[in-house]
Amino acid sequence: MTEKKHRIPDVVIRRLPVYLRYLQQLMSYDVDTVSSQQMGHDLNLNPAQIRKDLSIFGDFGVKGMGYRVSELADKLSKILGLDKEIPIVLVGVGNLGAALCRYNRYQKSATKIVGLFDGHPAKIGQVHGSLEVRPMEELVDFVRQNNIKMAIITVPAAAAQSVCDALVAAGVKAILNFAPVLLNVPEGVRVQNSDVTVELQALAYYL
Amino acid sequence: MTEKKHRIPDVVIRRLPVYLRYLQQLMSYDVDTVSSQQMGHDLNLNPAQIRKDLSIFGDFGVKGMGYRVSELADKLSKILGLDKEIPIVLVGVGNLGAALCRYNRYQKSATKIVGLFDGHPAKIGQVHGSLEVRPMEELVDFVRQNNIKMAIITVPAAAAQSVCDALVAAGVKAILNFAPVLLNVPEGVRVQNSDVTVELQALAYYL
Repeated sequence: MTEKKHRIPDVVIRRLPVYLRYLQQLMSYDVDTVSSQQMGHDLNLNPAQIRKDLSIFGDFGVKGMGYRVSELADKLSKILGLDKEIPIVLVGVGNLGAALCRYNRYQKSATKIVGLFDGHPAKIGQVHGSLEVRPMEELVDFVRQNNIKMAIITVPAAAAQSVCDALVAAGVKAILNFAPVLLNVPEGVRVQNSDVTVELQALAYYL
Repeated sequence: MTEKKHRIPDVVIRRLPVYLRYLQQLMSYDVDTVSSQQMGHDLNLNPAQIRKDLSIFGDFGVKGMGYRVSELADKLSKILGLDKEIPIVLVGVGNLGAALCRYNRYQKSATKIVGLFDGHPAKIGQVHGSLEVRPMEELVDFVRQNNIKMAIITVPAAAAQSVCDALVAAGVKAILNFAPVLLNVPEGVRVQNSDVTVELQALAYYL
């Protein structure tokens, strides 16, 4: 990671995939250009915020015309590192894990689940999408052999830290964690927590 | 919503439930006080950021002692509006919807799913947790009769906007949307999008 990357706020980084998906939708409708006004309207964001976010990465807008849709989409893909496929392992194939596999199958995205793991013997060998659930004992070797850097944790809270430790030991650098616990990871490993209770409680504030 | 509420950045609001859950964990270990240093360490956040966030809502810290855990938890609960139960309907009982029901059952939280709805005849009458799946035709009446203001959408993308419109017409003011589409809502209705692809793509940046 470069010094420069560190200085860009996480909230900006988290908006980039939202912009990217929007631009890809426009491309599918053969739209060539879009203004920050239009983007702001469609995405419920402030146009000035959008212009500011994008200006961090370069001078993409054309005065009086807006952004060239496919050019900007390409740039954002590259910035996010999505110009190549990113293989992901998912650990914990309960209802949520299964839902994420299914979702994964229908999405066109560079991030792709390529391995499913579960500690429960009854789950081993089940097929979700085109992937068979593998036993936990194979996790570390699989991650190493396939040079996997990203993982999704969908195990119960009590199992999450030990799964996390195994993933990190095998070389994983980025984890999307759905277990409702805070994971301890060494410097250089990034965890994003996705927690429905937190989302609902934050929404409650606006009622 | 007051003027004052509008001025607090969303990113701050989204950290409050994280603080709250942490404080509740401390309470369960009979911890009386905690410093912003300790909180920052445990939550992987900057202590100065935590102090700044909390100072928006009042002068909670005690010099040289830190925060009183249960007092601060109470305050945050009230600020978020979690001092009373918030009933929620969930629409779309696929894998993800079922996972959220299960999760809901095990969490102690003021936000509580009280109604499940699905448009698929085969799903009607299925039981998840202690709740039976109801037909979509009953959605609007159920929301109105139970004065429900919050909803979770876990239907496929193509169905999400029409479900959203029905919820809003029935009086829902806050929606957690898992469908990978941007929902159009009138002024005064709040939508939080939870999108796994967006989360994964943002994580990819840090690899």
